[in-house]
Amino acid sequence: MSNKKKVVLAYSGGLDTTCILKYFQLQGYDVVAYIADVGQAEDFELVKQRAEQIGASSVVVADLKKRFVTDYIFPAVAGNAVYENRYLLGTALARPLIAQGQVKLALEQGATHIGHGATGKGNDQVRFELAYAALAPRLSIIAPWKDREFLNKFRGRTDLLAYAEKHNLPVEATAKKPYSTDENLMHKSYEAGVLEDPLHVPDHDMFTVTKSPLDAPDKPCDIEIHFKDAIPVRVVNIDDKTEHADPLALFSYLNKLGATHGIGRIDIVENRFIGIKSRGVYETPGGTILHHALRDLEGLAMDREVQRLRDSLAPKFAELIYNGFWFSPEMNFLRGAFAQAQEIIDGVVLVRLYKGNVIIQGRSSPSSLYNQELSSMDVAGEYDATDAAGFIRVNSLRLKAHREIIRPRKQ
Amino acid sequence: MSNKKKVVLAYSGGLDTTCILKYFQLQGYDVVAYIADVGQAEDFELVKQRAEQIGASSVVVADLKKRFVTDYIFPAVAGNAVYENRYLLGTALARPLIAQGQVKLALEQGATHIGHGATGKGNDQVRFELAYAALAPRLSIIAPWKDREFLNKFRGRTDLLAYAEKHNLPVEATAKKPYSTDENLMHKSYEAGVLEDPLHVPDHDMFTVTKSPLDAPDKPCDIEIHFKDAIPVRVVNIDDKTEHADPLALFSYLNKLGATHGIGRIDIVENRFIGIKSRGVYETPGGTILHHALRDLEGLAMDREVQRLRDSLAPKFAELIYNGFWFSPEMNFLRGAFAQAQEIIDGVVLVRLYKGNVIIQGRSSPSSLYNQELSSMDVAGEYDATDAAGFIRVNSLRLKAHREIIRPRKQ
Amino acid sequence: MSNKKKVVLAYSGGLDTTCILKYFQLQGYDVVAYIADVGQAEDFELVKQRAEQIGASSVVVADLKKRFVTDYIFPAVAGNAVYENRYLLGTALARPLIAQGQVKLALEQGATHIGHGATGKGNDQVRFELAYAALAPRLSIIAPWKDREFLNKFRGRTDLLAYAEKHNLPVEATAKKPYSTDENLMHKSYEAGVLEDPLHVPDHDMFTVTKSPLDAPDKPCDIEIHFKDAIPVRVVNIDDKTEHADPLALFSYLNKLGATHGIGRIDIVENRFIGIKSRGVYETPGGTILHHALRDLEGLAMDREVQRLRDSLAPKFAELIYNGFWFSPEMNFLRGAFAQAQEIIDGVVLVRLYKGNVIIQGRSSPSSLYNQELSSMDVAGEYDATDAAGFIRVNSLRLKAHREIIRPRKQ
Amino acid sequence: MSNKKKVVLAYSGGLDTTCILKYFQLQGYDVVAYIADVGQAEDFELVKQRAEQIGASSVVVADLKKRFVTDYIFPAVAGNAVYENRYLLGTALARPLIAQGQVKLALEQGATHIGHGATGKGNDQVRFELAYAALAPRLSIIAPWKDREFLNKFRGRTDLLAYAEKHNLPVEATAKKPYSTDENLMHKSYEAGVLEDPLHVPDHDMFTVTKSPLDAPDKPCDIEIHFKDAIPVRVVNIDDKTEHADPLALFSYLNKLGATHGIGRIDIVENRFIGIKSRGVYETPGGTILHHALRDLEGLAMDREVQRLRDSLAPKFAELIYNGFWFSPEMNFLRGAFAQAQEIIDGVVLVRLYKGNVIIQGRSSPSSLYNQELSSMDVAGEYDATDAAGFIRVNSLRLKAHREIIRPRKQ
Repeated sequence: MSNKKKVVLAYSGGLDTTCILKYFQLQGYDVVAYIADVGQAEDFELVKQRAEQIGASSVVVADLKKRFVTDYIFPAVAGNAVYENRYLLGTALARPLIAQGQVKLALEQGATHIGHGATGKGNDQVRFELAYAALAPRLSIIAPWKDREFLNKFRGRTDLLAYAEKHNLPVEATAKKPYSTDENLMHKSYEAGVLEDPLHVPDHDMFTVTKSPLDAPDKPCDIEIHFKDAIPVRVVNIDDKTEHADPLALFSYLNKLGATHGIGRIDIVENRFIGIKSRGVYETPGGTILHHALRDLEGLAMDREVQRLRDSLAPKFAELIYNGFWFSPEMNFLRGAFAQAQEIIDGVVLVRLYKGNVIIQGRSSPSSLYNQELSSMDVAGEYDATDAAGFIRVNSLRLKAHREIIRPRKQ
Repeated sequence: MSNKKKVVLAYSGGLDTTCILKYFQLQGYDVVAYIADVGQAEDFELVKQRAEQIGASSVVVADLKKRFVTDYIFPAVAGNAVYENRYLLGTALARPLIAQGQVKLALEQGATHIGHGATGKGNDQVRFELAYAALAPRLSIIAPWKDREFLNKFRGRTDLLAYAEKHNLPVEATAKKPYSTDENLMHKSYEAGVLEDPLHVPDHDMFTVTKSPLDAPDKPCDIEIHFKDAIPVRVVNIDDKTEHADPLALFSYLNKLGATHGIGRIDIVENRFIGIKSRGVYETPGGTILHHALRDLEGLAMDREVQRLRDSLAPKFAELIYNGFWFSPEMNFLRGAFAQAQEIIDGVVLVRLYKGNVIIQGRSSPSSLYNQELSSMDVAGEYDATDAAGFIRVNSLRLKAHREIIRPRKQ
Repeated sequence: MSNKKKVVLAYSGGLDTTCILKYFQLQGYDVVAYIADVGQAEDFELVKQRAEQIGASSVVVADLKKRFVTDYIFPAVAGNAVYENRYLLGTALARPLIAQGQVKLALEQGATHIGHGATGKGNDQVRFELAYAALAPRLSIIAPWKDREFLNKFRGRTDLLAYAEKHNLPVEATAKKPYSTDENLMHKSYEAGVLEDPLHVPDHDMFTVTKSPLDAPDKPCDIEIHFKDAIPVRVVNIDDKTEHADPLALFSYLNKLGATHGIGRIDIVENRFIGIKSRGVYETPGGTILHHALRDLEGLAMDREVQRLRDSLAPKFAELIYNGFWFSPEMNFLRGAFAQAQEIIDGVVLVRLYKGNVIIQGRSSPSSLYNQELSSMDVAGEYDATDAAGFIRVNSLRLKAHREIIRPRKQ
Repeated sequence: MSNKKKVVLAYSGGLDTTCILKYFQLQGYDVVAYIADVGQAEDFELVKQRAEQIGASSVVVADLKKRFVTDYIFPAVAGNAVYENRYLLGTALARPLIAQGQVKLALEQGATHIGHGATGKGNDQVRFELAYAALAPRLSIIAPWKDREFLNKFRGRTDLLAYAEKHNLPVEATAKKPYSTDENLMHKSYEAGVLEDPLHVPDHDMFTVTKSPLDAPDKPCDIEIHFKDAIPVRVVNIDDKTEHADPLALFSYLNKLGATHGIGRIDIVENRFIGIKSRGVYETPGGTILHHALRDLEGLAMDREVQRLRDSLAPKFAELIYNGFWFSPEMNFLRGAFAQAQEIIDGVVLVRLYKGNVIIQGRSSPSSLYNQELSSMDVAGEYDATDAAGFIRVNSLRLKAHREIIRPRKQ
């Protein structure tokens, strides 16, 4: 049995983690490569071979797609997780999922260390490392892009390429892209490089997931989305009768429809956890559709005061996800509350997809708090308009007193 | 000098307030008709004549459009006022403005009473009456649609029409619309009637302000919006070089562009202050454009923690507007904070309008907190990646302690 | 079988509800008297006989004391329920409990109506009626002190006394107290009458529960309070070794100790739900001790961010209790979160009681997040002081950028 | 002119900063010693001589007491700044004040560096350094207790004493106290050492500021505190007619009275910014009296909804102070709101001081929102009890709808 230190590395097959894998090895580590399939466009067999070729002692490809949808994407949408009014958190949601798989493997294999190749300026390093700390506080973390020695050795892409050549590492001879990307089932992100200029308008062909609204079909697509306890349980294409009920199939189908109809692109300047502002461009087709549909159903089926409270906590929920606190006691606290808010958020929403628009057409709910009779202007129902007089007078008392007090003062 | 009770009535020229004006008169009131021009499509001269014909002792038409834009719409957009995640509060913003004008007139004319024709189930009655109470607590309020005697006399539209005929009141012989509307510079709303069924898809020709996204031009329109302290100060049409800097002209121009490009329609079920859920359809073209543009600029120019705090209070700000507390000490409290947040939110946003979409293309700010050098992945700047290691470890301490505690407990 | 309308009346045995019971009867109701024992000093047998004598068709005395402690008082203390920074909500907590018992009885007995004798200006009417509405929306509510006819008949205490005499009702020939009181296991309240002058200092002998701090023993009393999941499970008197573990016995014992040592008196001006300010004086001996002890233990055993979130919601929790929303979906939402926060809040707190003071002397917890080694200034532990350098520098980035931006602007 | 690097050091005269001053000198710095008088018991002339003797190039003693009271203590009390429900933030408030003076001196003297002797585990390092960064982002910060080289050289008190002896530094030959303290006008704190055991009951003679409640006079002391816009403007001792209106004299007098009567001791476990829990014992006599008095006056004079909003932000305000963000854009945001809340919080509070208790006896306000007539149970005033019926029914609508919805579901 080996006495080597053993590290489980989140391996992507790219230039950075390829060099890191070798670097760890040469530093005396037994390296286990953990390859997470979270829905990115990738040849996982090729990535696996690459890790083996470099010298990983074992390589694991984990298909996390279904869990990503049910345990991360759906709860995030149900909790109205929108970071800084706009970002639906695609990357942030995938990181704790990957870290969780990586930690599980590390504990099974008796690893002493756990590592990743995220940079020292971004959010992902935080998300990985806080998840590691929360799940396995006794594993040592190696993050080479924050290690002085590593940073001195690798000052940029050129050093990495030279290292790869020297050690005969399998890297693709592709030109560097003018920006960085991250992709998973929920979204694809673009940042850095030419995008760092906040006035730079992204090129038309940067986007690989969604069509531009300008290129989307002239014919809208009408669908129904059915929810149970705030979770989507069925999607029906009204035009061609396609149906999906399986979570992964359903979400993938929404992704496909959204992409076709140019839905879910945003371009924002956001605040990273480490205090830097950063410009990001995102494509989130299916998540955007779900977000709009569920907010609409909540209007019909969620109690007003519950909604107020939930919405007052939703930015914190989003911030915790963004900052990497998915596994934390405060997240459990929020989710304890949110579970209550999701109860009986049942029903169906009619959604029209058209050139970038998610147009809500109508909705119904078996547990609707909406009372058509009460809402009507014409019919009395059990509501007595004169009650409103008392209601308003009681609400006025405080305002009248305030006016009487400030009147003499202001004169 | 007359000993009569004098009431200032918010008069619209419609069937309801026409009957109410007469009714007040017959109850012995000296009635002053207050007609507010908040940008609705209306022949104000005709409305004025109508009030005089019924017997108003004096009639005032007040042009409130400019004040509406500068003192209500711009501050609301600056404060991120969005009710229940979606509604930009067009009607709610106009009510305190009208009430303020009405109160001013009442105090000038020595009126004893002040009144309106809003229904007893809606939000507008509350907005009018809370504003009256806050501004002039000693004026008596008459709200016939909550008065038992009036309600017994007028049980529906038929009674109103009969009353108008009997008293020879000038009413238009139009058919009742299948829904109610309210219109001003900010928006047009549709509710009640056939819309009470939340599944009912509105007819294509219900909308009179905006084009449907499906009918909007195939060619997008690119504009620049310039802000100073979070207030729009210039709009430039990049295509045809049209420019506007005057607040009213600028906002009207955004309304026109937004309407042309199918922007600002929403269809929601919302929670009224009086505890009823209500379905509303809204068209808010210019406000929607401004909202998206300013949120984008805030990403670049607003401090992260200021934004967190502002956004935590924005739903309360929207709720106060919606519920009619524009004139209240708590609103002053919020606006004291928001004034701080708006400082140095300066810059320009590039916006593309296209078939219902407000697409942010880029932005710049002289007071940007965004530091391209820091944000860059390649350049070191003054940021030292190893600082992040300490930052993350400090953030991990608490999570590690928590895991160590719950571990034995969960076993 | 009777065709009469049947009402379940919350009956206290006092002058008001005695007259109301008779009044209901004379209006043709079959009246069921519901007498709730929530720990007030009362001869319940006498009250029962009184109700029977007046003519109640049935009389129920319900001992709610244990449920009051376990289902209302302990959860309120655990949730840090303090209204307007000071009031521990003794009366507000008892009302939903009584209403719940009353509703249960009404449904069992097939009653059509439910009623109470609380005034039309106070909070209690709201608490009763919102609980009735939430638990049994189809029961009709009779609240005579808001009924115009009743109000016209009974304009004050004199009218009630005359009515009692006329109908030979059993009322005590006591002089009217110069203030109103309410008493239960949690507290005794004093308001109205001479207390309405906010400058009036209450008489020494108004207080019947606690000793004045000036009269309390010169010798302090030291106790231990043990908590499990934020609920007190054992109290030990360190001086005389008395122990209590039963919730009701434990809480009653704390009441006794607190009363002896002059603990839990407050004198405040508070804001009623109906918009009136009101002066109240309260004695809450046991609740005050528990409140301080549990807050202290939370310092040791609750995660910082959980505490931040819990404390941000605690004022809302208190407001919901105060305003009568104990049974509401938003309360369920909060309690879903709070249940998470209470987990593993285990341990013991050493408390000294002395002349009005609850002095925390020390505490320990098996699930403490406090790490003596880490906290020490001398010992390194796993904490590396240089980590703090990175932590602070990362936190400084944003502040530095802000200063650089505002510098040119301010010049 | 010297080419030396110049550092302004916050110098206390204690062992740590004495060694640091010398250490900086030997590292080639021109050291300016900044001695802040924030009200601690200290012989400032002696401290000054000591700094000169060690070799400081210049020594400045700054009397910051008055500014501490008017610009830090009074605003903190007005904003209800209480950290984690209990701590009044005495140390946290003094740090930005000292840093501000230090930065001003550094800029005047053309210093390149700024430094302090706070440890690497505590809060004070963060408070100093964030204030430096916010006020003078281009000054370099030297914090030796986070410097690896310094830490290797000085591993504990013994190394410091040896260094002092070797370099003939003027240190007092006092035995190490079994805990650390910090003192200023607002409070004295005790932590670390024997106090690290959270069960350790502090010795009776540890406390040097306040008497124990057990030793305080048997005779209570009655005072009036007058406020204007939430700031104390006059204190009157009712017993002996002593009066103070000058802020510093007034606050010092409250400190004296509070200390005599055993007021303001707390013993807590708190959460440091860097994620460690820490046990602290504090004496805050005058601040505690002011806090209770002003909260009471707010009950009478502050609008309910303003209070709700202010109190929802007060924990954030306290957290910002605690964590060192006194100079930050988010603090400006909060203070913009709080300034609104403080308007017309005018009046007088009668306070009794007795053996640890701050007993509120009564209060009055010229701008009171309290309406004795309205509050009265007997007198009608302008309040109509039947209004409450409508108010409650409107508030019930939502609860009834919810019950009707969940009934079928739960069956």
